[in-house]
Amino acid sequence: MNHEEWVRQEFRKLSRSLGLHYTPLGEIESRLNKVRANMEKQGIEALLVIQKMDFYYLSGTTQDGLLFLPLEGNPLLMIKREFERAKVESPLEDVVAFKSLRDIPSLIQIYGHRLPHSLGLEFDVLPVNDYLRLQALFPGGGFVDISSILRETRKIKSPFEIDLMRAAGKIGKKVYQEARKILKKGMTEIEFGGLLEAVAKRHGHEGLLRVRSLNYEAYTWHVLSGPTGGIVSQSDSPMGGIGLSPAFPVGASLRIMRAHEPILVDFGTCYHGYQADETRMFSIGRLKQKFVDAYKACHEIHDAVLEETRPGADCETIFMKTIQLAEKLGYKDSYLGPPGLQTRFIAHGIGLELNEYPFIAKGQSYPLEEGMTFAAEPKIVFPGEGSAGIENTVVVTKKGYEILTAASTNIFQV
Amino acid sequence: MNHEEWVRQEFRKLSRSLGLHYTPLGEIESRLNKVRANMEKQGIEALLVIQKMDFYYLSGTTQDGLLFLPLEGNPLLMIKREFERAKVESPLEDVVAFKSLRDIPSLIQIYGHRLPHSLGLEFDVLPVNDYLRLQALFPGGGFVDISSILRETRKIKSPFEIDLMRAAGKIGKKVYQEARKILKKGMTEIEFGGLLEAVAKRHGHEGLLRVRSLNYEAYTWHVLSGPTGGIVSQSDSPMGGIGLSPAFPVGASLRIMRAHEPILVDFGTCYHGYQADETRMFSIGRLKQKFVDAYKACHEIHDAVLEETRPGADCETIFMKTIQLAEKLGYKDSYLGPPGLQTRFIAHGIGLELNEYPFIAKGQSYPLEEGMTFAAEPKIVFPGEGSAGIENTVVVTKKGYEILTAASTNIFQV
Repeated sequence: MNHEEWVRQEFRKLSRSLGLHYTPLGEIESRLNKVRANMEKQGIEALLVIQKMDFYYLSGTTQDGLLFLPLEGNPLLMIKREFERAKVESPLEDVVAFKSLRDIPSLIQIYGHRLPHSLGLEFDVLPVNDYLRLQALFPGGGFVDISSILRETRKIKSPFEIDLMRAAGKIGKKVYQEARKILKKGMTEIEFGGLLEAVAKRHGHEGLLRVRSLNYEAYTWHVLSGPTGGIVSQSDSPMGGIGLSPAFPVGASLRIMRAHEPILVDFGTCYHGYQADETRMFSIGRLKQKFVDAYKACHEIHDAVLEETRPGADCETIFMKTIQLAEKLGYKDSYLGPPGLQTRFIAHGIGLELNEYPFIAKGQSYPLEEGMTFAAEPKIVFPGEGSAGIENTVVVTKKGYEILTAASTNIFQV
Repeated sequence: MNHEEWVRQEFRKLSRSLGLHYTPLGEIESRLNKVRANMEKQGIEALLVIQKMDFYYLSGTTQDGLLFLPLEGNPLLMIKREFERAKVESPLEDVVAFKSLRDIPSLIQIYGHRLPHSLGLEFDVLPVNDYLRLQALFPGGGFVDISSILRETRKIKSPFEIDLMRAAGKIGKKVYQEARKILKKGMTEIEFGGLLEAVAKRHGHEGLLRVRSLNYEAYTWHVLSGPTGGIVSQSDSPMGGIGLSPAFPVGASLRIMRAHEPILVDFGTCYHGYQADETRMFSIGRLKQKFVDAYKACHEIHDAVLEETRPGADCETIFMKTIQLAEKLGYKDSYLGPPGLQTRFIAHGIGLELNEYPFIAKGQSYPLEEGMTFAAEPKIVFPGEGSAGIENTVVVTKKGYEILTAASTNIFQV
């Protein structure tokens, strides 16, 4: 059998039997309509969508390709590799194979579109060389940055998307349940983290977490014990861990976890591209009272955030209230990191990427809206000693919120 | 204790006790000298190095920051987060904290440098928005693409780098040894892949593999069984697998591996940023003869590549010889992928990234040089049925080569 025949005849059946499903046309159309409404407002004639998660969001596939989205008429999905598979994965009608960026202007015209005078590109992630190449290929076109249009559209999740995040949350719950059987005295942080990841994968976690950034790398083995929980690293996070080398100086290390010290596990899961993020605490033997207390404070701050969570609540106001509460609880200097290194957010938007809107943070004064999803993660850090924290991923509902990560929040002691 | 004191007094000791080590000054200086020789040839006054692996290569740290490298005088390492840690990790002398891109021109001048008239940037990965911001900050400066300078410099590995790749290869060997105890009837591909990754992490594998690309995502759970080994996906690889969803349509799936079919494991490991890549074959019960034969052919092609491997050998010529050999062995239509979808390389350079120079490939006519490292991976693909393959990472030595991935090449049958 040749590859083309096999994909046409067998691939859909096999992949569905393995639990893969595809974004329905109605879902894609509603996303495209939202983007187009924003394009119209800004006078943009067409977009060329290149970045993998934007491309997946608007096409349903992550095969190697580009999406040309004109204000009117069919979007054109151009695929480099693998064409037959993209036709199964995407519900879009116009799908065409191409080999080089050079082919794009003529393909656009062959499919009945004019070359646009204003073409939207993702300036926040598109490499300079691709930009310069496109300038040569669209000499009459003015390029416009569309990253904010795409990020604004993606910040409100549909019921379809929330279902996928709920499924990611369920994988996380299984991971934390099995974690209680896995954690053993004498284990290193990375051994524990690696085994948790193996559990997650067995339950369908996709392995990768994604961040929209050139240099920021997401990972899921953020297991910190005692002093490794007290150190900040490259990432905008209250604590970074030691990691395994200066090339990856974050997350779990080869340190053997000891009795009575805090073991913080910040674990993300991914299902069909959609992520859930969850932090829980463990200890071997009884956890030192200092960290039990700090964990209670984190839980209280977490609950206070959720109490405020409803459409219309202002993100910056919620953040500033947590600062006051942390101070009242006696953690002014350790809340969200050590003095001078404290992060300025209590929650980050989450979906296809870990740094989506909204940010419940300083300087982010805008209202929560129904369908927004975020991970709220109050953390308390003591340099040289360790850290405590909790994190849940929630969706803003009509009247409040729903927690998508439902593992028990008790400190687990082995 | 505050964070600063802790990092200064305890971090180096703790991190060294956990097996982390740092790039020595002599190594960094020799890399900087090579880059500067190329800058001088091209008349570039200074570089601003931003991409994480280039930055690590030239500074020894991956803390969040940028490196200003003038043709003469000390390089200036500018760190956003975390400053104290970068001072431990990097042997460079001039290290300064900064908050925003806006601070950079004045910092450069404070440290005694002139603002350059020609500033090198990594056009192949730098996002357009950063480029436009830098244009506003360096109004007199002409920007030059330095991606090829950096990639050319990085293609020849020093003994220090080869040692790190050797260590990555040793982790891979342990993974394949333990794999033989892990593989069980009734397992899914992803369960097997997840457990292998857990083993690798326990032995110090950093978890991430890296590719220099906006959209290409590397991963290490490339476990394909029977028909999932026969399907191509988004990546420039002979076979992509089914994966777990259209958001990640590559690698291991939830398919239960069956008896007698080929199970191909393509597993990468990473140690202190440096990678090794290795493919081996497994089966549950006796492997079908068709795949035993195909594997033998891959092994023969692999050996033929190594026989040609020495300084001066032309990469394209080696590749074309493998095409002839595959044809002679009866695999013209299945070598490196199904007809029409065959990849055009037999080996990719490897180091900090999986797509480094050299490529032993069509259109890549240049000589191998001592210190180059590549992963040679002949593969044979039958759509609907499965695939066979072998892969080893090697370094070009003065007279030939050394294999850095030393797991047994026998097909392992459980």
